[in-house]
Amino acid sequence: MEKTIFFAPDILSNPELPFEEGQHCIKVLRKKEGDEIFLTDGKGCFYDARIIQAHPKHCIVDIVNTVKTPKNWNFNLQIAFAPTKNIDRIEWFAEKATEIGIDRFYPILCDHSERKEIKAQRIEKILISAMKQSQKATLPQLDEMQQFRKFIDQDFEGQKFIAHCYEQEKRELKEIYKKGNNALILIGPEGDFSEKEVEMAIAKGFIPVSLGESRLRTETAALVACHTIHVLN
Amino acid sequence: MEKTIFFAPDILSNPELPFEEGQHCIKVLRKKEGDEIFLTDGKGCFYDARIIQAHPKHCIVDIVNTVKTPKNWNFNLQIAFAPTKNIDRIEWFAEKATEIGIDRFYPILCDHSERKEIKAQRIEKILISAMKQSQKATLPQLDEMQQFRKFIDQDFEGQKFIAHCYEQEKRELKEIYKKGNNALILIGPEGDFSEKEVEMAIAKGFIPVSLGESRLRTETAALVACHTIHVLN
Repeated sequence: MEKTIFFAPDILSNPELPFEEGQHCIKVLRKKEGDEIFLTDGKGCFYDARIIQAHPKHCIVDIVNTVKTPKNWNFNLQIAFAPTKNIDRIEWFAEKATEIGIDRFYPILCDHSERKEIKAQRIEKILISAMKQSQKATLPQLDEMQQFRKFIDQDFEGQKFIAHCYEQEKRELKEIYKKGNNALILIGPEGDFSEKEVEMAIAKGFIPVSLGESRLRTETAALVACHTIHVLN
Repeated sequence: MEKTIFFAPDILSNPELPFEEGQHCIKVLRKKEGDEIFLTDGKGCFYDARIIQAHPKHCIVDIVNTVKTPKNWNFNLQIAFAPTKNIDRIEWFAEKATEIGIDRFYPILCDHSERKEIKAQRIEKILISAMKQSQKATLPQLDEMQQFRKFIDQDFEGQKFIAHCYEQEKRELKEIYKKGNNALILIGPEGDFSEKEVEMAIAKGFIPVSLGESRLRTETAALVACHTIHVLN
């Protein structure tokens, strides 16, 4: 049986577990004062901690030991994606990408987006759960939904790609990505990016790429992009 | 808008669409006699066909044109996996692997399997739908559930791998797989293969591999294995 991992992002400044984590620890798992539990701050550290107050609404701990646990990939991987109409599909992508390893998710609103909003809190929970489940100490960052046109303006230190399905001269991501580089990859909505969007991204330095010969759904494309970068590193 | 693809595995010997496909064509899409539709047999061919009898229970067509469409990978990729307790997870894997490209799925029953049976018909439907969605003309084969011990006895022309989590000398799949080779990969249940199973598989020529440093769920491991072989080809 594996150790339960609790998530306490502010543990260094606040010795109280977040409400839901504290409830789970005290009410569900019935931990007592003096018991040791295992925490992560989602910022690269695990902690052994001892419970000093086992109140179900205020579980307070004392850190006994800190284990710095850097992420197991040495590049920065960011994926911007247009959330799918069926939100399960994108939640699935968020979970799987967290297991495999990703630094940052950007939901973007595109010309052909069918979904205009996401439940960030729900996805945040999925990310936390996938981080714990895959025994990582780093929580990927989930940005707020933003307009594609605004998004492509921001600076990025590394290779930038746009995956689209138009017939156009483009190479495969796996041929053009250079090992060790940071990567930012744009994945379009079910109806693809608009031609205008592709043009604008290219003008901003995004390299058009294909993800292979198979036709993939949005969420599969996003995961395939994420995993391709890992395989090449 | 893309063409609807109908699945008619026996179209060369039987000009009638399978019942559900015929219903969808005639009752839902209201196709008439003389209309042209697009079919695949799931065996590597697409067909243009003309409806010659538009009966909702017996839709009969005449093949107008045959387009041989070989799969877009030139190796044979087979994955044997222990179905997860939560069947959604393995159904998800089946869908995604079909999109990315796979030849054959073997559900296997392992010492630590929590799930002893699967609904093959349900997974079969998912495979057909993913094949259509990704515009492929080849349906992956789904075998019946079988015992791990019996499974590893069968012959396979290519590289055979077992992915497990025990501390043992093993290399990464991406380092040891040789481009162009057929691959058969074993993926264990939530509680991993038993040590005995790993030993038996190795004795049968399976090479122990890891899938990278991240700890992955069963269905994620299976998909990562499938995609790794594609990236390397």
